[in-house]
Amino acid sequence: MSFIKFDRYVDRHARSFTERLQNLCRMPSVAARGSGMRVIAETVEQSMQRIGIGTRSFRVGSGYPIIYGECGGGPKTFVVYGHYDVQPVGQLSDWSSGPFAATIEDGKLYARGAANSKGDLVARLAAVEAYQKTFGKLPVTLRFIIEGEDGLGSPSLYRFTAENAELLKADGCLWDEGSSDTKETPIISLGFKGITFLELRAFGPRSDLHSKWGAIVPNPAWRLVQALATITSPKGVITIDGFSSHIAPISDEDSEVLRAIELDEAGLKREFRIGGWVRAMKGPMLVKEHIFGPTCTICGIHTGHTEAGAKTVLPSMAMARLDFRLVPDLTAQIVVGLLREHLDIRGFKDIEIIELGSAPLAKSSAKSRVARAVIESTAEVYGKPPLIYPMDPSSGPVGAVCGVSEPPTPIASFGTGYAGSNPHGPNENIRVEDFLKSIKLIGRVIHKLAASKSKAAIDPHEDSKSTAPLPKVKTEPRI
Amino acid sequence: MSFIKFDRYVDRHARSFTERLQNLCRMPSVAARGSGMRVIAETVEQSMQRIGIGTRSFRVGSGYPIIYGECGGGPKTFVVYGHYDVQPVGQLSDWSSGPFAATIEDGKLYARGAANSKGDLVARLAAVEAYQKTFGKLPVTLRFIIEGEDGLGSPSLYRFTAENAELLKADGCLWDEGSSDTKETPIISLGFKGITFLELRAFGPRSDLHSKWGAIVPNPAWRLVQALATITSPKGVITIDGFSSHIAPISDEDSEVLRAIELDEAGLKREFRIGGWVRAMKGPMLVKEHIFGPTCTICGIHTGHTEAGAKTVLPSMAMARLDFRLVPDLTAQIVVGLLREHLDIRGFKDIEIIELGSAPLAKSSAKSRVARAVIESTAEVYGKPPLIYPMDPSSGPVGAVCGVSEPPTPIASFGTGYAGSNPHGPNENIRVEDFLKSIKLIGRVIHKLAASKSKAAIDPHEDSKSTAPLPKVKTEPRI
Repeated sequence: MSFIKFDRYVDRHARSFTERLQNLCRMPSVAARGSGMRVIAETVEQSMQRIGIGTRSFRVGSGYPIIYGECGGGPKTFVVYGHYDVQPVGQLSDWSSGPFAATIEDGKLYARGAANSKGDLVARLAAVEAYQKTFGKLPVTLRFIIEGEDGLGSPSLYRFTAENAELLKADGCLWDEGSSDTKETPIISLGFKGITFLELRAFGPRSDLHSKWGAIVPNPAWRLVQALATITSPKGVITIDGFSSHIAPISDEDSEVLRAIELDEAGLKREFRIGGWVRAMKGPMLVKEHIFGPTCTICGIHTGHTEAGAKTVLPSMAMARLDFRLVPDLTAQIVVGLLREHLDIRGFKDIEIIELGSAPLAKSSAKSRVARAVIESTAEVYGKPPLIYPMDPSSGPVGAVCGVSEPPTPIASFGTGYAGSNPHGPNENIRVEDFLKSIKLIGRVIHKLAASKSKAAIDPHEDSKSTAPLPKVKTEPRI
Repeated sequence: MSFIKFDRYVDRHARSFTERLQNLCRMPSVAARGSGMRVIAETVEQSMQRIGIGTRSFRVGSGYPIIYGECGGGPKTFVVYGHYDVQPVGQLSDWSSGPFAATIEDGKLYARGAANSKGDLVARLAAVEAYQKTFGKLPVTLRFIIEGEDGLGSPSLYRFTAENAELLKADGCLWDEGSSDTKETPIISLGFKGITFLELRAFGPRSDLHSKWGAIVPNPAWRLVQALATITSPKGVITIDGFSSHIAPISDEDSEVLRAIELDEAGLKREFRIGGWVRAMKGPMLVKEHIFGPTCTICGIHTGHTEAGAKTVLPSMAMARLDFRLVPDLTAQIVVGLLREHLDIRGFKDIEIIELGSAPLAKSSAKSRVARAVIESTAEVYGKPPLIYPMDPSSGPVGAVCGVSEPPTPIASFGTGYAGSNPHGPNENIRVEDFLKSIKLIGRVIHKLAASKSKAAIDPHEDSKSTAPLPKVKTEPRI
């Protein structure tokens, strides 16, 4: 089947698609701040309706709207995940232009959320439009699940999907995380590491004290530092008692896939401006650690006075935020349990552990229908085979969408970003060309999802014939 | 000599003195923020002129004005130090009323700077006024040095005094730091620990990264934590190589004075809401540590994202602010040198040390004329002997004022605060009654400075007869 007409449609509408993305990027939908969330949810829903997607919007408690949308037909059903919220912008002064200006410079669209993941959301909808305009009705049923709490650990999504598991029954899932690497090879992920996000707290005097008391009043900042220092070694190895014994060995299939992956070490080092990697790793060891290594990252520490001006205080409280990325067979529960025991045994019973959120890991096979459709389409559009990550080192609420049925729904994840997209940092951006290429890629994926037969002997939902009904919800109707 | 008239004057003007203090406290003179500094300097200067103090105002470079004032006469000259700037307010939400509202509740005046040290400044000026109105001309020459950079490490003051050493030649110095303890015993200090204030920095990738890179990209937050953890032990002992060998043993005279000091351990623990002291110390050991122990306090750490909302980043930079309080014979130079070596030898050459400021320690004898005048006056006004601290555990620019001549000018320091004043924290306050008592105390001090003879065999400036001329300054004239 020829995509000449499809591609021509995309090229002819490049400007309008890009403007749609800019419009969305100009809405400052930082979930952590919470303003403007309903407006952007309505905008997204309207843009879905405009191209004939039937939608409903749901709210769980006071959470941000979840937009459910359905279009197409045919025996196969696929879930398309997306989110309209973005990460906090961090220090404004680190940005070259306003994080919500969505300016295009040198072909790059700069905005918080451009790469993660408004570009993907707009590209997926644009592909549906282009497909309908050039081929007609979609040959598969697509079920969009668009949430607004990706940056908050997706609490609404977890409740919504638990209550509406029927809706998530699908032959596969298209996820929105991905980019090309420093050598311009697109990366496709078949799963994600899990995550558990914790806050550790140490407490001292009732309020910040004059630091003249430093010789005799216990300092919670020192307490926290001493406790943290027992969790990893100076070489960056996680040293929590019993931690490594909970990690599953890497399977033969995964080892096989790992061998095909190469990290552009020099390019990444330039990109990140770092002198070397943890433990001076390189080559296959570095790849293995990146994709299958568990992590314990200090994401933030705050205590005392750190603004301009000398203020010599003995702090009242000290806190650190840690995220652990989970690999097979680690779970959030195991990590928190081990950490608690580890700290207790070393006399740090006073350090409070607060669980801020978690997501289980997800992993699926390269042989699923959805994986094959994405891999083949990518090879066509990019002119070279993509890199396949058996598990992306990032995390997301994949479990909420693909883990509610048994066996879990297979997934393939890809996105519009590139190696310089900096999705959680300042100057987040995507290249407009990548955005347009992504639309073309998605058009082909839609086609292949219907046409191709999975080569896997078992495809869990191969025989699911009917489109699931719109959810009968415990979830509250839209406000 | 009877102070009946003097005390009556103070009582009759209690309201007006208190209002003067409230007015000054309503000026938000946070040196670190820098707005409104010239206005408050002018207000202070005018209030000095209004009671007949001859003043001049100086600026060093773009620093905040230093107000020099002179009044009285007679053979003896004493320097009175004060400052009109205040500490940053910290989290506004921690305050019960606005930090610059200067409201009085239950007899307590709440304001940033009330205890440190606008209460002292206004009390000293009020005492001069009351003395002149009731006794006439002051029997000693007082030289006021009022600066606006106490919170910044007093850079202007150091330059000003170095350039105008003649002006600082005096028979003694009255300092403005002090309070009564939890048992309502006033504390008089004859010196201060030194201080060096440092920032440690660790650097990672060029900007905050998505924490999915945590398995392979070095994290500066972990780097900083690991480096910090080598500086003190979990028990709170400073473990910098060679540190303890630079600390002088406590002299017999000081040991003697220490024996007279008792900390109200239970009261302070209640006040600070802490369960115990560092290393579970108590009694004489606790007192000794408090007054003669060196400190290394983490005053603040910042790295990554610590605001509301989950943001899983691998930080670009991590920084910690440390203050070391210096005891005999430690100097800032020694501490920084030892710390650098200590970190280097452990492989932390990448950790940057930035010196933010320092002040040498100062220590003088309880037998000096100024010490005796303050001690005796305090005993009279409070009806019980004060506690004498051979060295206050806090620090200040005493070296700038009292260290420019040789031997150093003896000092005595006392203030209007009490155990609940919380001078660097939220809800800083003084009791109005303490403020008025302090005025009465200062009146008696002025009198005794002229009348009493030092019992010390040597009083360094006993024979200095003339009032030093107003400075011929390299320092720029007032703007």
